[in-house]
Amino acid sequence: MKKIGKQTIKFDNPPTILECNSIVGPKEANGPLSKYFDKTLEDEFWGEKSWEKAESKIIKENVNMLIAKSGINSQNIDCVFAGDLLNQCISSSFGLRDINLPFFGVFGACSTFVESLSLGAICVESFANYVLCATSSHFCSAEKQFRFPLELGNQRPPSSQWTVTGSGAAILSKEGCGPFITHITPGKIVDMGIKDANNMGAAMAPAFSQTLITHFLDTGRSPNYYDAIISGDLGYIGKSIAIDILKNNGYNIKPNYDDCGVLIFDKSSQDTHSGGSGCACCATVFSGYFFKQLRERKLKKILLIATGALMNSTSSQQGESIPGIAHAVSIEL
Amino acid sequence: MKKIGKQTIKFDNPPTILECNSIVGPKEANGPLSKYFDKTLEDEFWGEKSWEKAESKIIKENVNMLIAKSGINSQNIDCVFAGDLLNQCISSSFGLRDINLPFFGVFGACSTFVESLSLGAICVESFANYVLCATSSHFCSAEKQFRFPLELGNQRPPSSQWTVTGSGAAILSKEGCGPFITHITPGKIVDMGIKDANNMGAAMAPAFSQTLITHFLDTGRSPNYYDAIISGDLGYIGKSIAIDILKNNGYNIKPNYDDCGVLIFDKSSQDTHSGGSGCACCATVFSGYFFKQLRERKLKKILLIATGALMNSTSSQQGESIPGIAHAVSIEL
Repeated sequence: MKKIGKQTIKFDNPPTILECNSIVGPKEANGPLSKYFDKTLEDEFWGEKSWEKAESKIIKENVNMLIAKSGINSQNIDCVFAGDLLNQCISSSFGLRDINLPFFGVFGACSTFVESLSLGAICVESFANYVLCATSSHFCSAEKQFRFPLELGNQRPPSSQWTVTGSGAAILSKEGCGPFITHITPGKIVDMGIKDANNMGAAMAPAFSQTLITHFLDTGRSPNYYDAIISGDLGYIGKSIAIDILKNNGYNIKPNYDDCGVLIFDKSSQDTHSGGSGCACCATVFSGYFFKQLRERKLKKILLIATGALMNSTSSQQGESIPGIAHAVSIEL
Repeated sequence: MKKIGKQTIKFDNPPTILECNSIVGPKEANGPLSKYFDKTLEDEFWGEKSWEKAESKIIKENVNMLIAKSGINSQNIDCVFAGDLLNQCISSSFGLRDINLPFFGVFGACSTFVESLSLGAICVESFANYVLCATSSHFCSAEKQFRFPLELGNQRPPSSQWTVTGSGAAILSKEGCGPFITHITPGKIVDMGIKDANNMGAAMAPAFSQTLITHFLDTGRSPNYYDAIISGDLGYIGKSIAIDILKNNGYNIKPNYDDCGVLIFDKSSQDTHSGGSGCACCATVFSGYFFKQLRERKLKKILLIATGALMNSTSSQQGESIPGIAHAVSIEL
């Protein structure tokens, strides 16, 4: 691999995304992408006593399903990259504590899935045969931790997003016939001073735009190179801001750009306001929907840019703004 | 690089640890390693209004000192790996939001520094010229978050450890004359059922032992190959357990093994019970003390194994045990 331009890495032997798997909760199962997910849950607890334990079970079972489906002996996987939104990433560490594989915990908030794919791809080209990348989020555990207890029944403002309950995971492989990760553009932290923790799309859109423009400049590509440019969870508001920022910088991404947070729920009937969010938003929509579109050659070139808001409830209470980040992977056949 | 044995990676062109820097708080400044740290603080706030903001300032200023000392133009650094103990790793993301470099957030609890060095070394051998690795922790922000508000004045049990206030950071380089990172042995999650959140040493010692034994088996090395084997923050209790586990497995590490948590405080006069802990424990003791010992050729071969407890306060309240992890880097001249 080699660095091209300012911050993009181009792979000489692009890793294959060998297999993906996704599990989602009941609300996602009622959304427009329902039929693409590998497993849908009937309730948020899945037989567990707490939302945190349920989230751990979701990532655990998703990874188990993925490994079984891939046909790989799990002990041939060289390492795992995983992280989530819970404090100290406990969904991943508890969910994967029995996996018996070298484990790298990562934290990129809702950008975690693409951060994992990026680091996984670096490992596959440099030493690994197989790397597993996984993440999860859970509406109930996230609301409890970042906002208010659900029992309070707080009203959610129109700019708020709905954390996706679920897990998405992928196995990267040195050998394979694609889809290939051909480039990664890891993002920088961008903080434009947005302080409204109920408007994450606005906080993350500048980071998305910076990473995307850098990717275009580094690779010499333009928006129409890709069949689809997909952001992680900017939602309706962030998507609209991102289109404007790109337009002001001379790029028209509108024709082939969409957002996982917009795609996963039906805004008119599901009361999800600005759309989906959470680590699992990008991870389940990619693992469930886009990976299958690539496999079936309905799409041949996509740029997946997951976005993250690197804040917590304490930073908001202390009056801090919300730093955003966005990591991009170019996935091609 | 290539994988040797079960889970060790051997570098063909071992990255150099070009420069390190450390900042510590007032308690660490009164400990036995005081003179080795690059900067010591007079109080825990450093002019900030909260402990979280102080911790962010510590990692920010430590990274700034490191870059200045290294003589490298910061824009030549290819990427940054950083993480910390605060919920959603806000010390790192707020402290480094102005650094304007590609940023990978990592979470390995107190193993974060060695996790960062490991991933940084993979990047340096595969595409990067320079990678920056940083972490921080803060006694007051950690107590508030993981245990009780300091204002309560709770008694701390004898098995408890004292979170180090400070930051340690390193720049890895493709070119250089060492000390070199020659091998990494990334660890697996190990959970032996310890539930006492005031006895982290016991929870982490099994993971340390597993990684160390795997490193010996993978490399064919024995304890006396190294001038020093250093754990991150097992403290007095964990250190003693680790020596026993290794002994039961046929390895006598006692002569050349020590622990950063044991070294950083004077147990008899500093009321720190089982010793130091926190991401900054291993990071400041390595950056401050061991790196200088290597530079001055007083030590030539060390194995640094940082240990982490992958839990949070919610998991403890829900009756969960404490999964541990340990990552090893072999550093040689």
